[in-house]
Amino acid sequence: MDILRKRKKDKMKNRLVLLVAIAIVMLSATACSSVEQKNAKGNYVLVVHGGAGTITKNTMTPQKEALYKAGLTQALQAGYNALQSGKTSLDAVQAAINVLEDDSLFNAGKGAVFAHDGRNEMDASIMDGRTRAAGSVAGVTIIRNPIDAARAVMEKSEHVMLTGPGAEKFAKEAGLTIVDPSYFFTTQRWKDLQDALKQDSVKVNQSDLQNKKQAMNKPSGKYGTVNVDYKFGTVGCVALDKNGNLAAGTSTGGMTNKRYGRIGDSPIIGAGTYASNNTVGVSCTGWGEFYIRNVAAYDLSAMMEYKGATVQDAGDGVIKKIGSMGGDGGLIALDKNGNMTMSFNTEGMYRGCVTRDGKIEVKIYK
Amino acid sequence: MDILRKRKKDKMKNRLVLLVAIAIVMLSATACSSVEQKNAKGNYVLVVHGGAGTITKNTMTPQKEALYKAGLTQALQAGYNALQSGKTSLDAVQAAINVLEDDSLFNAGKGAVFAHDGRNEMDASIMDGRTRAAGSVAGVTIIRNPIDAARAVMEKSEHVMLTGPGAEKFAKEAGLTIVDPSYFFTTQRWKDLQDALKQDSVKVNQSDLQNKKQAMNKPSGKYGTVNVDYKFGTVGCVALDKNGNLAAGTSTGGMTNKRYGRIGDSPIIGAGTYASNNTVGVSCTGWGEFYIRNVAAYDLSAMMEYKGATVQDAGDGVIKKIGSMGGDGGLIALDKNGNMTMSFNTEGMYRGCVTRDGKIEVKIYK
Repeated sequence: MDILRKRKKDKMKNRLVLLVAIAIVMLSATACSSVEQKNAKGNYVLVVHGGAGTITKNTMTPQKEALYKAGLTQALQAGYNALQSGKTSLDAVQAAINVLEDDSLFNAGKGAVFAHDGRNEMDASIMDGRTRAAGSVAGVTIIRNPIDAARAVMEKSEHVMLTGPGAEKFAKEAGLTIVDPSYFFTTQRWKDLQDALKQDSVKVNQSDLQNKKQAMNKPSGKYGTVNVDYKFGTVGCVALDKNGNLAAGTSTGGMTNKRYGRIGDSPIIGAGTYASNNTVGVSCTGWGEFYIRNVAAYDLSAMMEYKGATVQDAGDGVIKKIGSMGGDGGLIALDKNGNMTMSFNTEGMYRGCVTRDGKIEVKIYK
Repeated sequence: MDILRKRKKDKMKNRLVLLVAIAIVMLSATACSSVEQKNAKGNYVLVVHGGAGTITKNTMTPQKEALYKAGLTQALQAGYNALQSGKTSLDAVQAAINVLEDDSLFNAGKGAVFAHDGRNEMDASIMDGRTRAAGSVAGVTIIRNPIDAARAVMEKSEHVMLTGPGAEKFAKEAGLTIVDPSYFFTTQRWKDLQDALKQDSVKVNQSDLQNKKQAMNKPSGKYGTVNVDYKFGTVGCVALDKNGNLAAGTSTGGMTNKRYGRIGDSPIIGAGTYASNNTVGVSCTGWGEFYIRNVAAYDLSAMMEYKGATVQDAGDGVIKKIGSMGGDGGLIALDKNGNMTMSFNTEGMYRGCVTRDGKIEVKIYK
């Protein structure tokens, strides 16, 4: 592979994107602060996240921060535009996630991390709150926008979840955009994999990892290493349209250096994604294994339905459960009345929301 | 493949098994009726199912019925023996499911149905109610006992869900029994696939299928056909050991004629399997897509935890929800106090349970 040429191209592209990014962030700054002042409740129509993890101001440059905020803003704008033009919440979720999938900064689509064997294996799921129809793909390597494949599974097959080469065959037949696996190559992710492969023997952050392993009640085995710095990164969106229909979607490249066809929570309905017009739409990001074991996305809905919890309390409750098990991450949730939460127990979560009247807010840290 | 020799061998084996089967059923008959007379509550330690579906007395012979009941009885006995010898609920679940996986009558392990491409693609999952640790494999083709692989994922990896060739690589490294795919060949399942392939054009039971499609809010597409007669069949077990620890597991060959790497609810924690010592252990069987969309296994637990429902009411509630969506199937659930339910909305479900003092009960019809 002509890696040097790709790197050069990546760099030039990044500079151009940075200029656009700074302009967008400056334009949206007024809107953001006005949302924060109002602190409006029941006023939201769209929420996105771009992953949660150890995002600290020390490891971030102003340029990088501007790029992330610009990416989130573009996604929110795309979703909001869809809603404004009378499209469904499903369309809005797909539009917002497409922007994040096409942005190499986020761990989904173009920016997907590399698995242990140097491939990009992606997962995505989507759910329609109106009908509770759902679609999901896992372990796909050649579908440009995995969220489109999840939606095609939902709408054009009788199944909910398709995996691997079978899912790719289905996507081809459904007419989705297929790309060469090299499309997903990015210099930073490749470097991340090389670092992770090195750390397989060195094991940075060993004590923290050991604590988490014990929390998972698992013996310390030889089967791979969860690198706490590389396990996060997912994108997701929840939207509420004018007809009161909720939809939620999640897309990810999974964990850097993942092995053995590992699947996290992102493609699993109930764990990484859930939506029901009766309650709430949810998209999760974090250490997937804990989200699966907690059935996190549906648990949030169940707390609202069965206990009468608010979306804020239910979201915080789910994150608390995950934390008490030794896991970490975040989630976004938007209820049927336009109330939302963006809960997380990590140092940061790339996130943002739009109000009914189009005010955009993006945030990274607590 | 030497199909004729295999068929002859299958037939001879079946005759031998039938004799043993009839003996076992006769021996356990007294125990069964005494359980029914007592109608004991809070007295169960183990429940199994062998799939739910259109099982009618018309399509069943007395010999076949005896074989099914014998298989269930053997599984219950194996699980009960494990508990009696002081082993954990996880051991009991695994022992019971191993018996059903090794019995060609049930759609799991040896008796797994064929996918569209003539392969046997199996899924399994297991969950430990004590720690809520979980393990799962999907789309595996060479692991003799998929439930063993699910347990190995839970105990020997940091992941919850592994798929396809990656999961098989992991199983090999974990020292599990690997077989040639031809091990899973059975004459009846092969015939079922040929029938299903024929029906792909003929479409028996079209109106019923159409109704269900509409219930799923999906357009009638070209992507395969859900054959209502071939979609069922799964085995599962829930156990409660002397230390009050619950465990649940599910294993399946999925749907005859399935395509595109389809995954049903069986390997999905929260959909097909769930266990928590706080509430209940659950294993589901039925039209997997509806179980995923309803997050069925965890929903049962959530109704008990958040609404104070009994295991019976929660189990019936889940099946009612699935039915109202147009789906069908069943489930078994055993709560932390030894109360259980075996709810289903199909004509029959292969099922059975054991009381604390070893009384075995097996049933097929309503």
